[in-house]
Order: sequence, then C-alpha cells, then structure tokens
Amino acid sequence: MANDSRMASESERHQRGLASLASITGGTGTAVVESLKDIAPDLAEWIISFSYGDVMSRPGLDLRSRQFATVAALTAMGTAAPQLKVHLAGALNVGCRPSEIVEVILQMAVFAGFPAAINAINLAREVFQERGITV
Amino acid sequence: MANDSRMASESERHQRGLASLASITGGTGTAVVESLKDIAPDLAEWIISFSYGDVMSRPGLDLRSRQFATVAALTAMGTAAPQLKVHLAGALNVGCRPSEIVEVILQMAVFAGFPAAINAINLAREVFQERGITV
Amino acid sequence: MANDSRMASESERHQRGLASLASITGGTGTAVVESLKDIAPDLAEWIISFSYGDVMSRPGLDLRSRQFATVAALTAMGTAAPQLKVHLAGALNVGCRPSEIVEVILQMAVFAGFPAAINAINLAREVFQERGITV
Amino acid sequence: MANDSRMASESERHQRGLASLASITGGTGTAVVESLKDIAPDLAEWIISFSYGDVMSRPGLDLRSRQFATVAALTAMGTAAPQLKVHLAGALNVGCRPSEIVEVILQMAVFAGFPAAINAINLAREVFQERGITV
Amino acid sequence: MANDSRMASESERHQRGLASLASITGGTGTAVVESLKDIAPDLAEWIISFSYGDVMSRPGLDLRSRQFATVAALTAMGTAAPQLKVHLAGALNVGCRPSEIVEVILQMAVFAGFPAAINAINLAREVFQERGITV
Amino acid sequence: MANDSRMASESERHQRGLASLASITGGTGTAVVESLKDIAPDLAEWIISFSYGDVMSRPGLDLRSRQFATVAALTAMGTAAPQLKVHLAGALNVGCRPSEIVEVILQMAVFAGFPAAINAINLAREVFQERGITV
Repeated sequence: MANDSRMASESERHQRGLASLASITGGTGTAVVESLKDIAPDLAEWIISFSYGDVMSRPGLDLRSRQFATVAALTAMGTAAPQLKVHLAGALNVGCRPSEIVEVILQMAVFAGFPAAINAINLAREVFQERGITV
Repeated sequence: MANDSRMASESERHQRGLASLASITGGTGTAVVESLKDIAPDLAEWIISFSYGDVMSRPGLDLRSRQFATVAALTAMGTAAPQLKVHLAGALNVGCRPSEIVEVILQMAVFAGFPAAINAINLAREVFQERGITV
Repeated sequence: MANDSRMASESERHQRGLASLASITGGTGTAVVESLKDIAPDLAEWIISFSYGDVMSRPGLDLRSRQFATVAALTAMGTAAPQLKVHLAGALNVGCRPSEIVEVILQMAVFAGFPAAINAINLAREVFQERGITV
Repeated sequence: MANDSRMASESERHQRGLASLASITGGTGTAVVESLKDIAPDLAEWIISFSYGDVMSRPGLDLRSRQFATVAALTAMGTAAPQLKVHLAGALNVGCRPSEIVEVILQMAVFAGFPAAINAINLAREVFQERGITV
Repeated sequence: MANDSRMASESERHQRGLASLASITGGTGTAVVESLKDIAPDLAEWIISFSYGDVMSRPGLDLRSRQFATVAALTAMGTAAPQLKVHLAGALNVGCRPSEIVEVILQMAVFAGFPAAINAINLAREVFQERGITV
Repeated sequence: MANDSRMASESERHQRGLASLASITGGTGTAVVESLKDIAPDLAEWIISFSYGDVMSRPGLDLRSRQFATVAALTAMGTAAPQLKVHLAGALNVGCRPSEIVEVILQMAVFAGFPAAINAINLAREVFQERGITV
C-alpha cells in the first residue's frame, strides 16, 4: 500500500483530505484550516493532505473508532482543548452516540486522572448544547 | 444509574471487576494486580473494583471501542509503556484486529507526534511477536 | 484493610466521600460535582465515592500533606487549572499556610520548570485574593 | 567555568539577568517579573538571577538559537501559553525572522502533533499582529 | 528576603546547597551531581546552588512536606523515573514513613491516572527493598 | 508554496525525504524507518515523505536551527528517549557543536525542569561517547 500511496498525485491526496475533513469535522475543521492560511498556509495544507488525506481517510479502521481514539487521546493529553471540541463534534458527525462519547471520556479518569476527564466533560457539554443534545 | 451503583455491595464491584479484568487483560492484568499486593494492596483493590468493576465493565460502550480508546490515550501520553503493552494485548483479547490496532497507533502521529507513534509501534511488535501474530 | 473496605457498603463510601469532599474543598468541590450530574452523573459519583470516599479520606496521611501533594502534582502537570484552583483553596481549608503553598509551587520550578510555577502562582494569587489573603 | 561563576557575587548575577531579560523579552518579561513580586518575590528574583543571569545569558549559544529552542519546547509542551507568547515576542526581539519562527512551530507538528503546532501558530498570529507584522 | 539572598555570596549558596543535597538525597544525589561534571559541570553546579542552595533549603516549608511534594510531582509527570527513585529515597532520609510515601503515590491515581501510580509504586518497591524496608 | 508542493509528485516527496533523512540522521534514521516496515510500512513512508520530505527539508530554516529546535522539544517532552538520541546525533551531523547541544539541553532546565535536562544530558553523553567526542 505504501507503494500505491507513493504513486498518488498530490492533487489526489488533497481532494481525499478535503472530503475526509468535511465528513468528519463538518464546517468547523474547514474553518480551522482556512484560519491558518494567513501565516501558515502549508500547515493548513498538511492538515488536509497528510492528517486527513493520508491518515484519517485510511480504510483499515471505521470512522467511529477513529473518533473514539482521537477523543480519548486529546482528553488524556489535556493540552488541546480547541481540537478536542472539534473532534467531539466530529464524533457526533460520524455517528458516535453522545452517551458513547461520555463513556470514552469517563474511561480516561482511569488512565489520565480525574482532572482530564472533568475538563473534557465540560467541553462535551458545550458541544452537546450547541447541537441541542441532552444525554 | 448512579443510584443503582451506589446500592451495589463492595463484593459485587470486586467480582465484576475481577471478571472484567480477566476478560480484557487475561492473566497479564491479574499478575500486575497481584504484584501490587505487597506494598500497595489497596491500589490493587482499586484497579479491580474501581477501574474494572466500576469503569471498564460499564455496558454503554463495547469492549473493542474501550480498548481502542485506551491504546490511543496511552500511546499519546507516552509515559506508560508497561500499561500500553498490557492493553495492546487486551485489545487483541477483546477482538480488535492487529491491523486495526496499528491504525489507532498510526493515527496518534497526527495528534501526539511521530515519536509517540513509533514507540507504540515498537511495543505492538513485541506483543504481536509474543502471540505469533504477523500483520 | 483491602478486605475491610471491600465489606463497606456503597452507601458508606458515598457518605464518607461527601464528608471528605466538603471538608477539603468546601462548597467549591461540591459545586463541581453537582455541575457534572447533567451529562456525567457517574463521574460525579466516582469523585465522591472513589476520589474522596476511598482515597482522600484515608487515615494514613494528614490532610495538609495530601493537599501539598495535590498542589505539587497539578502545578507540575500544567493541564488542570480549574482543579488546581479548587485544591489551592482546599489547601487553605485544611490548614496549609499561604506561605507554605507558595513554597510548594516555587519548588516546582526545579522539577517542572518556571512556566509551571509562574502559572500556578497566578492561580494562587486569584485564590488568595478571593479570600482576602495577603502573603 | 563552574568555579568562575561561583565567584560571581549575587549582585552580578542579578545585573546580568536584568540585562538579559530586557534584551530578550523587552518590557514584557520585566512586567511578568514585577507582577510576581507581591506573593512570590523570590520566584521573581530567580527568574532574573538564575533563568536569565545564569542560563539565558551564557555565551556558548547565540540568542537566536536560544529563542528557537524555547519556542520549540513551549510549543511541544502545550502547557505554557503565556510564556510562549513572551518568547515568540522575544524571538522577534533577538532577530529571528517571523518566517523562521513559523518554521520552528510547523516542525513541532512532526514531534508533538498537529494540535500543538496549531495552538502555537494562533499565539504567533497574536504576537505578529501586535507588532504589525505580516508573514 | 529577595534582597537578603541577593547579598549572599555564591560560595554561601554552594555550601548551603551541598549540605541540603546531602541531607535530602544522601550519597545518591551527590553521585548524580558528580556524574554530570564531565559534559555539564554548570548543570551540576546549578543543582547544588540553585535547586538545593536556593530552593530546597528554604526555611518556609519542612523537609517532609517538600519530599511529599516532589514525589507527588514526579509520579504525576511520569517522565523522570531516575529522579523519582532519588527522591523516594530522599523522602525516607528526611523522615517520611514508607506508608506515607505509598499514600502520596496512591493519591496520584486520582489526579494523574492509575498508570502513573502503578509505575511509581514499582519504583518505591525497588527503593524500599534496597533499604530492607517492608510496608 | 502550498500550491507548488501540491503539484509535487509523491515520488518527489519520497526522494526529497530520503535525502533529508540521510543528511540529518545518517544511517540511524534510515535504520529506524527500515525497522518499521514489518508492521507499519506506511508509518515508515510518512516519516520519509511527510516528516522529512515535506517538513524537515523545507528551505526556510537552516538545519542547525532545526536540530536545536528538535533537541529542545524532545528534551522538554521527556517521552521520546530513542528519538532524542537520533536527533542528538543528527545535530552533530548537521554541524551543531557538542557544546552548543549541551547549551540547548541546559536551557531546558529553565523551561521544563531539571529532571528533563539531566535525562537528556545522559543521552547526550552516550551519543558523544559513541562518536569519541569529549566536551
């Protein structure tokens, strides 16, 4: 597969990334990428072509599992609140149930401590409220 | 549900935790818990009754998703190699495919950087080899 | 002791946790727990019965030392500002002198770097000012 | 050299630190130090005499490289936004080009993940805008 | 006090630091400092004169509390196993009871997650065994 | 530039990455990449084409500054010892003087604490000894 992907043109990676970004993050992720284009246009492009075109769009794992993994990691790290908000919304976008997202966050109390879980729950509440979701 | 769980006796939490620990981690997790009983028996008990009895055994999320979340978090944190090995094996135990586990780790390159992903892949190789798994 | 605690009913853990939470964090911790009950009631219950009922209320270490340990850890981690504020107030509640709290934070410059210490001092100033404390 | 520095009087360390702090951070760092003097005057003094007097003013590495190193570390850590802003401005003060600062931040996507790089770019934008810099 | 310490000669800081280092870490800390003198003699000197001469030897907090704070922080950080071993021994040296040290580590399960606590308990076991201590 | 890079074929990224990887890390980085090809061939390819082909080979910052930034970040993070060793050697490969590398590590005591600096100095000693370098 490495060989195949090496054959892909940059344009294909970009198109695949844009589609993946839109399907996972909706308008939010696209807005983040746009906002970076003033002083870091290549970071914006890497998010599209590498993060989403190469990684997040890979077929070997379903999108729900990918978002559970991302929510878990960003909750545990505790250093990426804006990105966690984007991916909590992204989890909803790809079909994760709100109660499942809460489960992933609660599980992080075991592995990264209660402050990490509490802070992520507070971000989840914001995201759920913006969508009119009650758990 | 909070009320219900408050009614559960400690003995029920302990039994539920032991069963969950065994089903996820096999003998490895049990051995870790046993090893703690010399100087930290209550930490051992909390792993059983809280981490597994209260958290990991909850019905609201399937075990495969729970293990993807744990592998993602421990890969991203980069401070818990022994626990990551236990949970890489645990992911296999609950039916995660080796290729899916690799996907979760690869995805962490995006969120926590390449060193985190590389170090976790090297632990996954050890776990796969111990099981005779080739990806 | 593990055996003893296994005998304890959930109701006892809950009551002991509520008392410990109130004595350490005053109304602040209780308010945090209440705020979690909308989307994560079991996280709220775990804070009461596990974090405070099982751990923080243990007799083997005095409350002042427990709060020094918590302030040190949250200062060093740098990812838990809201919880650090709660536990800076909690340190005052259990009899830590403001000057001792400052000492713990200053010591973290050695182990976790100056940014960690500076950010924690700025949170301590907020907590002290809310209490009308001058150091 | 250790012997030599041991001979230096505290007053020399303090003076050298003040000069280094001023040359790197301009008025911003001095203001941070002043703000600490109410409850942590010795932390303020350590920043002057140790961080700047002993470390940042050492002759063995040029100031541009020192600021690239600081920006890289604080970007990767993700727990020190206020200090990262001070040192992004400091990087400009010692002659780092805005485009070079952006390069250091972008490089951190590889080593610490995209969220770390994105958050730092957003702080860099604030610093550049305050200076009227366009990249 | 900032003024007073500024008057202290470097020689006084060095002597005070050596005494503090010896009283807290015994021969172990001194050996670490010695080992650094080949390629980083000034780091060795800073550990003596700043970390121990300026910070750890301050009178405003008792040595037991200082060691509880250090053990808590290094346990929570999870990135400093060699230093945690030195300070677990240091805690014993200044009169912390083994059972109290275990309490501090257990408490970190709440704030930094179970892997952090488990890894620190395993280091504590090594230190206790080297001293012939049973808990 | 974003547009230009999007035009580049995957083959060009791969070739540019291989050249950059070889010039920075010598045989060591290439060996790491080879070792990943059994279970994570695409991670290996991303290191070549993204980390080195897209990022590390960019013209806007000199290689010495890039390695100072990487050494600073990995020292501060404290979770990537194998990668730090590779990049300490890489720093030497691109012309950083051993004494300058030591300076970058020492500076991290200020921003990430003394344990981070001490652990990195110990890795630097290993790398220097393998090269027969004395500082």
